[in-house]
Amino acid sequence: MSGSGGVHALVRRAHEERVLAILRERGGLSRAQIAARSGLSRTTLSEITSELLARGAIVVVNTDARDRAGSGRPAELLALDPRSGQFLGVDIGHNRVRVAVADAAHEIIASGVEEYRPARPWPHRLAAAVGLVDRIAREQGINLAALQGIGVGVAGPVPAGGSRADVLAAFSARFPAPVLVDNNTRFAALAEAGHLGRNRRAGETGNDAEAGDVLYVRLADGVGGGLVVAGRLVSGAGGVAGEFGHVKVDPAGGVCRCGKRGCLETVAAVRPVLAAAGVDNLGELAVRRHEPHVRAVIDDVAEALGRVLADAALILNPEVVVIGGPLPFAVPEIVTGAAAVIRAEMIPGEAHPLVRPAQLGDDDGARGAITACFRQSPLLTDYPNPRVPGSLS
Amino acid sequence: MSGSGGVHALVRRAHEERVLAILRERGGLSRAQIAARSGLSRTTLSEITSELLARGAIVVVNTDARDRAGSGRPAELLALDPRSGQFLGVDIGHNRVRVAVADAAHEIIASGVEEYRPARPWPHRLAAAVGLVDRIAREQGINLAALQGIGVGVAGPVPAGGSRADVLAAFSARFPAPVLVDNNTRFAALAEAGHLGRNRRAGETGNDAEAGDVLYVRLADGVGGGLVVAGRLVSGAGGVAGEFGHVKVDPAGGVCRCGKRGCLETVAAVRPVLAAAGVDNLGELAVRRHEPHVRAVIDDVAEALGRVLADAALILNPEVVVIGGPLPFAVPEIVTGAAAVIRAEMIPGEAHPLVRPAQLGDDDGARGAITACFRQSPLLTDYPNPRVPGSLS
Repeated sequence: MSGSGGVHALVRRAHEERVLAILRERGGLSRAQIAARSGLSRTTLSEITSELLARGAIVVVNTDARDRAGSGRPAELLALDPRSGQFLGVDIGHNRVRVAVADAAHEIIASGVEEYRPARPWPHRLAAAVGLVDRIAREQGINLAALQGIGVGVAGPVPAGGSRADVLAAFSARFPAPVLVDNNTRFAALAEAGHLGRNRRAGETGNDAEAGDVLYVRLADGVGGGLVVAGRLVSGAGGVAGEFGHVKVDPAGGVCRCGKRGCLETVAAVRPVLAAAGVDNLGELAVRRHEPHVRAVIDDVAEALGRVLADAALILNPEVVVIGGPLPFAVPEIVTGAAAVIRAEMIPGEAHPLVRPAQLGDDDGARGAITACFRQSPLLTDYPNPRVPGSLS
Repeated sequence: MSGSGGVHALVRRAHEERVLAILRERGGLSRAQIAARSGLSRTTLSEITSELLARGAIVVVNTDARDRAGSGRPAELLALDPRSGQFLGVDIGHNRVRVAVADAAHEIIASGVEEYRPARPWPHRLAAAVGLVDRIAREQGINLAALQGIGVGVAGPVPAGGSRADVLAAFSARFPAPVLVDNNTRFAALAEAGHLGRNRRAGETGNDAEAGDVLYVRLADGVGGGLVVAGRLVSGAGGVAGEFGHVKVDPAGGVCRCGKRGCLETVAAVRPVLAAAGVDNLGELAVRRHEPHVRAVIDDVAEALGRVLADAALILNPEVVVIGGPLPFAVPEIVTGAAAVIRAEMIPGEAHPLVRPAQLGDDDGARGAITACFRQSPLLTDYPNPRVPGSLS
């Protein structure tokens, strides 16, 4: 943190988010109503709403005569601007780009997808991504002049050095907002955690203040994952937290693309599963999954995955373990099988995590990228919230 | 967070911590000098220093004539009060209680220990703890009237229900400050992370703004641990994060006190190691540790510990892995052996964590309890600090 400017900016942002959360709950409130609900002074609130109006995050929705109370001037009613994009989430995959746009209160107001040939080079993917954003804004009538943050998730290894700079440059050149770049699987983990938060807390806090400790693993071409601890995405010291795929599950196993032997990825990624089951694709795997030979392969995957997740759950004590990606989508028995292994490995008598399949669709990365943007404000999520836990050891 | 009062309190605290950090760097500064270094306005600073003076956190150190500049009134010089305890850390173990007191700038200004018979009941331990605090204050001339926070670490299972309430009640009745209770092993993890922070950042930030992602495991009567992620202690959803001791390392192993079979604790706690080595105590183990039979036992412990920590390190991507407790203190080869296993399991070509023995002594729990208290202010530690990592999967 640098200087008191940082603190003041932080407080202003906390106030803003408070006002926006109130306006998401119910649009069309007067400043007096917002002041009463927020606990902010009239003076402070007036500064906040002026700023939000100037930025295009909120609008005056009426000054209609029917709302006049008594003989004075009508009270202006304020609401979120349903057409003002404040956060942009982009997920640049191997064969498509997904985009989602959220308003100031974090609701998705526009989205889209564009496919391209697999493994198209970075400059082409970036051009497709920026082009898709522009098209969505144009076709869905979204104003992007007031963007507060941009999150860009990328599939596979995050491009290092020059390529990474290309990602930042492509979006920075087009939009005057800060850009976050991360792995799209980790963004998906954050989205699943947020999804949970909304479901569980609906009506409780009145906003989607995501919470919870979540392990997320994704079984696809590779095996990746992400961790959410106390509502925040864990990066790790080197930015590679969540590498469930490279935990050793079979010391005598095959060589992994990482150079080690017997990694979870050599057992639980799509390709080795199809090969072991002797099928050509996930559709065939799904259809034939109850045949004994195929079922045995699936049981082995569930067992290996369950053991890795059980160890991680003992150490991290998550509320939820989410298993996503095309493989468990085709074969849900992988989730139930892994859940049984995890249950058996937890400490008897202590609460066990909920183990569930991923609930979001292909837009999970874009949604998580948006979540990552507004999570940059720590004030609303974790102060002051001391935990006073118990422990066995 | 509740209402704007919460935000204002937070900002005031951030300002305070800024001023205190400056005064720890160099005591005896005028308000003008503090204003220049902090970037705070004279008005804001005056409010802050008045509050700190009233609370007894800082004192006027001179108004000596030799400091008069020109002909006006001398500028009051302010400094930390070296006798004002602001944070209290207590570690209530099986056979002793440790206490440490820190000033407003987080430096330890007094400490002490009192032993009692092992497994003394809770009311006696609590009375001993509060009595020790009073004695330290009296004998070392520490004023505890202005305590800002109290952290109490307890060995073994954190007492639940009534016993837990007893811990809170014993300290709340005696001191008008918020009380945090947690497992003392987790507090030790936080202390080791802070220790690292101070070492690495000395001269860089000028304060002990702890940082880093740390795995901490402790091999003692049991095997416990703690996780620090982005500078914060991980509690987990149920408050039991860090249970390295109950990860399965041998499916055919012995029954653990937790009810499962083959937990790391059945292999790497003090008692099973002494039994397997055929020695009576840790002193004998240390002396005979190079005998082939004993060495083989130690190698097995290092291998099992290393595998558990390697899996955790792949998932959490820590900067440092710390191995503490009386067992590795007696047999440092456990640390070097586990380090070799961890190195071999990391993803080739990516940075590996530093694996090191614990560096703090028996006061680690009390120190960590203090750290946990002042960590309740999130402002100074992690805003805005987005990470923009790369990833393999």
